[in-house]
Amino acid sequence: MKKHKSFFITIEGGEGCGKTTQSKLLKKYLEEKGFKVVLTREPGGSVVAEKVRNILLNPSFKVVPLCELMLYEASRAQHLEEIIKPNLKKGYVVICDRFTDSTLAYQGYARNLDKNIIKKLNDIASCAISPDITFYLDVEPKEGIKRAKSVNKGKLTGGDRIEKESLKFHNKVRKGFFELAKKYPARIKKIETKNGIEETQKNIIEAINKFLQKKNLL
Amino acid sequence: MKKHKSFFITIEGGEGCGKTTQSKLLKKYLEEKGFKVVLTREPGGSVVAEKVRNILLNPSFKVVPLCELMLYEASRAQHLEEIIKPNLKKGYVVICDRFTDSTLAYQGYARNLDKNIIKKLNDIASCAISPDITFYLDVEPKEGIKRAKSVNKGKLTGGDRIEKESLKFHNKVRKGFFELAKKYPARIKKIETKNGIEETQKNIIEAINKFLQKKNLL
Repeated sequence: MKKHKSFFITIEGGEGCGKTTQSKLLKKYLEEKGFKVVLTREPGGSVVAEKVRNILLNPSFKVVPLCELMLYEASRAQHLEEIIKPNLKKGYVVICDRFTDSTLAYQGYARNLDKNIIKKLNDIASCAISPDITFYLDVEPKEGIKRAKSVNKGKLTGGDRIEKESLKFHNKVRKGFFELAKKYPARIKKIETKNGIEETQKNIIEAINKFLQKKNLL
Repeated sequence: MKKHKSFFITIEGGEGCGKTTQSKLLKKYLEEKGFKVVLTREPGGSVVAEKVRNILLNPSFKVVPLCELMLYEASRAQHLEEIIKPNLKKGYVVICDRFTDSTLAYQGYARNLDKNIIKKLNDIASCAISPDITFYLDVEPKEGIKRAKSVNKGKLTGGDRIEKESLKFHNKVRKGFFELAKKYPARIKKIETKNGIEETQKNIIEAINKFLQKKNLL
């Protein structure tokens, strides 16, 4: 039993970078090590937050950038209160697919909203809870969008509102993640994904083991 | 033709204070004076903002206060960009049923969220557009809720998520509006509603005429 060994992991990256797959693999790995793990995602992760997600990702809606930003923050505030905070308190490791770095990369670097405003809103919505470790899964946007589309094959939609953005937009998102990883090297671990799922997982496990050792959690 | 005589009016007040009725009467009055008038409301007023409104007012949802605040601000940002700003630009008078003062009264005074955070978010979402004149329609909460319920009679719902709050909550909202009216006496005109629709309208018209004279808009 590692009852009180709770910490907060976020997985970040562009479309098709493999966040969902890697989150599940990381959950499995940590459970095998004896941790209790909850996997969740943004935007969404709770009833109300999922309702907000439906607005955010509906490709038929024209959402102005500032409204989009506020909706992400609303979803975050609800998700934090209902899922993240209670689970950390109960001693779970929380793995969250997307968090505040995505807001900076997408709404800040790609949509050109004022980054200081975003930081302020991120702080307010997250009640100053910051991830203990973040994995940024890097993928070349052209390749990532191809992957994301093949995953969605068979679904009726031609991609959600964000996936449908231009390649130029996704390149700006990537540039944003690069800058964030450079700015917060102690927290954000940049992971290459071009060599396939297994190699990516190996790199994540290596980094999480270092983190666990450093924090005396192994 | 009073083409460029656009200005921004907000109507504020607790549940059942008669905002909807008085907004319509004011619109009619100003149109008779030759103004072009658009009537709109918060939360909502545009497709996406109405979707957010549905989440906000659904009585079966448990929305945490910070998420609630962010959703109101998201709805405001969208509504401002799609409805308020373009209509002011086209030379319309915009009458908006609820705006930033409601957020301070409900989320600040009644829900006890930090008022400085709310002011900051109000400023960000409204792009620093402030009403030229605000009518605060005062009603004793017990009386107002009775009125609101009689208006909703015949509908399936037993009141929306906000109407369902306790009397104590609505008393705090009223206290909030009182303090705001005291703080911004040049902008906020406090109007009694206890003497019926006609008397209330008379008082509003008196105040708007003073405003129009002062601004040389008559």
